Amino acid sequence: MKDITIDQERLWSSLQELGEIGETDDGSMMRVTGSPADAAARDTVVSWFEDAGMNVTTDAVGNIQARFPGTTDADPIMTGSHIDTVPNGGKFDGVVGVLAPLEVVRAWNDAGFEPKRPLDIVVFTEEEGTRFGVGLLGSLVATGKLELEDALELSDGDETVRECLASIGYNGTGTIDISQAASFLEIHVEQGPILDEAGIDVGIVEAVAGITHHKIIFEGIADHAGNTPMDMRHDAYLGSAQFALELEDIALSAGENSVGTVGKSIVSPNGTNVVPGRVELGVDIRDTDGERLNQMVRDAKDAARDAADARGLDMQWETLLEVEPTDLSEELQGELERAAEATDRTYRTMLSGAGHDAMNVADEVPTGMLFVPSEGGLSHTPEEFTSPEDLYRGTEVLEAAIRNLVDNVGTVPESPGERQPHSVD
Amino acid sequence: MKDITIDQERLWSSLQELGEIGETDDGSMMRVTGSPADAAARDTVVSWFEDAGMNVTTDAVGNIQARFPGTTDADPIMTGSHIDTVPNGGKFDGVVGVLAPLEVVRAWNDAGFEPKRPLDIVVFTEEEGTRFGVGLLGSLVATGKLELEDALELSDGDETVRECLASIGYNGTGTIDISQAASFLEIHVEQGPILDEAGIDVGIVEAVAGITHHKIIFEGIADHAGNTPMDMRHDAYLGSAQFALELEDIALSAGENSVGTVGKSIVSPNGTNVVPGRVELGVDIRDTDGERLNQMVRDAKDAARDAADARGLDMQWETLLEVEPTDLSEELQGELERAAEATDRTYRTMLSGAGHDAMNVADEVPTGMLFVPSEGGLSHTPEEFTSPEDLYRGTEVLEAAIRNLVDNVGTVPESPGERQPHSVD
Repeated sequence: MKDITIDQERLWSSLQELGEIGETDDGSMMRVTGSPADAAARDTVVSWFEDAGMNVTTDAVGNIQARFPGTTDADPIMTGSHIDTVPNGGKFDGVVGVLAPLEVVRAWNDAGFEPKRPLDIVVFTEEEGTRFGVGLLGSLVATGKLELEDALELSDGDETVRECLASIGYNGTGTIDISQAASFLEIHVEQGPILDEAGIDVGIVEAVAGITHHKIIFEGIADHAGNTPMDMRHDAYLGSAQFALELEDIALSAGENSVGTVGKSIVSPNGTNVVPGRVELGVDIRDTDGERLNQMVRDAKDAARDAADARGLDMQWETLLEVEPTDLSEELQGELERAAEATDRTYRTMLSGAGHDAMNVADEVPTGMLFVPSEGGLSHTPEEFTSPEDLYRGTEVLEAAIRNLVDNVGTVPESPGERQPHSVD
Repeated sequence: MKDITIDQERLWSSLQELGEIGETDDGSMMRVTGSPADAAARDTVVSWFEDAGMNVTTDAVGNIQARFPGTTDADPIMTGSHIDTVPNGGKFDGVVGVLAPLEVVRAWNDAGFEPKRPLDIVVFTEEEGTRFGVGLLGSLVATGKLELEDALELSDGDETVRECLASIGYNGTGTIDISQAASFLEIHVEQGPILDEAGIDVGIVEAVAGITHHKIIFEGIADHAGNTPMDMRHDAYLGSAQFALELEDIALSAGENSVGTVGKSIVSPNGTNVVPGRVELGVDIRDTDGERLNQMVRDAKDAARDAADARGLDMQWETLLEVEPTDLSEELQGELERAAEATDRTYRTMLSGAGHDAMNVADEVPTGMLFVPSEGGLSHTPEEFTSPEDLYRGTEVLEAAIRNLVDNVGTVPESPGERQPHSVD
């Protein structure tokens, strides 16, 4: 067998090629689930998987599973991520977690390496939740957290998930059974500034923050901006502004793993000369500690109520998403540390503030996550960037870790019948 | 001659009929300049003017002038307002200033009253400035403050004013010469809560507040809401929120005739899980005192700069509109007071925080404004309401004032050649 060599140019050029599918005039990505761009991107990665000697199947929720065969019948190692993007997103989020393992398989092919366990690369459907309102959709179904039928009936008003997958020809049968995997590893861009600012090659994720999303509506009275004295107003915008500043204080004082964001604000009627009568906010609150997260949400609700009361506004608070914090497998953290040391790369352990498909997988099978740097921490924008060199280094670490996992057939039972899925974590 | 009697039912029924033209499913008005609804509303009022024996002409910027003849060749008394609405507006703003004087003419016809001076009812084009971005457009042109050609070349991106007026057949020739009027009177809904809360029949306007509009852009960095620590953010929304609360303080401490409003806010990218990278605000600052207004704008600019500096944001401030405060004619205030007393109606003097076409007219000819109550002070919303009784009372006062003006042919020179336009004010 020749040495296994990650090809930096090949990896970069595949990433650029995929980044042209759904690219808009301003260079941002628009590859929403079920769009023509999504279909074209799926076709492209499927052809690349097949060219790399992988067997590709699609499940009923559109998750793609590409298997590189093993020399034994031991349970597979799984890896993967997603290729859908947010509107006006970038080229790296999710895509790295699909193309870096593809490069691993290509490098194995070049070297003639044959793994003992199969390696599955999974492309999960609708990770971003942009179109149908439920993020991590494909992995929710694959881990049994969301019923297949419920997922397929989700609608964006125009089309259901079922119709949209049928229209692009990615409506397969069954659902991927994640629990059959011996381990799951996801490589992803950090989407934050920590690795880039510190000049560290890779991040080994200890835990994924719990995520909550809330819709808050402040309702006042839309009055004429010229004829309504300041002290006779019920200005919904000022109520929302006061709340936003208080949420910042709540997050700052909760701790360094705590964040609170007013990301979305829709003002009505939204005319320069009209006192705002109604404001809808989209609020995101996260923490790696479950109890602290709950306390932040309680404090934020109190702050919203106070801000509304101060101006005679109505306030409605609706929680749209609640995901518990997830601790990742310590054994796989150890594997990733050993892989970083073996490839002579710098690393640090860290937390993920973002949700990932790995989060859903983590309570099914031992799961690890590896981060590569995001330049300036930018994410979900066309400026999102990871350098070819950083991608190369991360993929080397990934390859070393996966190679160790696929060749380790002694520590877990061989037969699915005798398997104890959670024994390693 | 019979007694002159304002017909409350007729006035109310005309107002309701006009309010059905451009009414949307939710009961709000959508009668933007040049829309089919605008054309239909113009056709309707023109037919009513003609039925009332008035001679109707249209000028090059679409202003409609309906003349009820006088028995002498003395200069006319002018009155009028507008029938365009803001999007999702109400049925009273502007319309009252056209239909109340129409009811005056109808009542004169019923009684066989023949005025010495002609009475002109003017319907000004694009008062709201909703479509082409310049409010009071028709009166700006009629008073020579905006060149006709410049007005006609304004575009909303799809169509110019010239094209839009031609498409609805309201592209006449010349421009109304406001300076030929002996006096100008505008009746309007208050668009504020003062008359309604105090239970007073009419307001006699002493001055119209100066109005400034500003576009402020806060530019930060759009980061991932989960992965960007609170202390590494450049959150444009929080900068704009801080500014809005400080603008409120500035207006509150400036005085009771001072207002400052953030009416419009556009957040980008506007996703719940993205730290806002850019916020554009539409800001309205008004005061009846010119120097105090300038000071408020200076203070607001400082506050915007401070809010930006505190979070490492860029801030751009663009002033889009600057209108000086306008004092109205004391002689016409006296006329309106005498008319209120003659009709046994309660009145108070007050300020107008809103801009009106009368503001443009006021430095050309002696100008007065009369307010009728707005229920709850609501304006620019479908809930905008003035009761039939309040409309009736206001129209009675208007009629008495106008009748006195049209029959007073002794105080101004008869011949245009010898006229001293500003002598009365």
